Amino acid sequence: MYITKYNALAKKNAYKIKSRIWITTEDGMFLGPGRIALLEAIEEHGSMSKAAKSMKMSYKKAWDLVDSMNKQSKELIVSPKTGGKNGGGSVLSDAGKRAIKIFNELDKANRTDLDEKIKGIKF
Amino acid sequence: MYITKYNALAKKNAYKIKSRIWITTEDGMFLGPGRIALLEAIEEHGSMSKAAKSMKMSYKKAWDLVDSMNKQSKELIVSPKTGGKNGGGSVLSDAGKRAIKIFNELDKANRTDLDEKIKGIKF
Repeated sequence: MYITKYNALAKKNAYKIKSRIWITTEDGMFLGPGRIALLEAIEEHGSMSKAAKSMKMSYKKAWDLVDSMNKQSKELIVSPKTGGKNGGGSVLSDAGKRAIKIFNELDKANRTDLDEKIKGIKF
Repeated sequence: MYITKYNALAKKNAYKIKSRIWITTEDGMFLGPGRIALLEAIEEHGSMSKAAKSMKMSYKKAWDLVDSMNKQSKELIVSPKTGGKNGGGSVLSDAGKRAIKIFNELDKANRTDLDEKIKGIKF
């Protein structure tokens, strides 16, 4: 493994840095990539059960995640659809849309900063 | 789940941001928290088998990880101990020590930056 084989190679690898962020409160996980994907699916489908199905997630699991997010935010992230024949579903609230936006912006800014930090670093 | 219970709560949660970074090359994963922990254990124990044992990792797994890191760096990260009665073991090279240092510094700087980014953000 050691000497002959690898030292002889001219290493031309470009190093890239990857990251994953998540937001917590004293109650634990609040927002992470999976939860954001669920919120985006709820926004797309206008229904928690359809969103769960689209992610191959059980309805129970989706409910628990939404419940956890709702408990940890000042305003509801996902709220009940009321009235009309579509009543009874779930809808991503303005607070939910804002949570997606903030999370994705933080994630993107972080990736940009990390790309800058790794530049020129060699191993 | 929705209205009565949670809207009534005054939410006082402080939001914290957590992160995980890893460094890749075109050959895949190069350095991540688990690999760094393995390198630190090799430095501490001066032996790949003892390091693996301390992490409850198989020797095969440790070897594969070290092999992967060595293949992706210009200089060996872990090199063979030579000569004397301790010959035959493994030792963290200067390049390996540098890799630990760079990774931990990047990780720390990133955490500091993220702490700054999350300040004042409410959900």
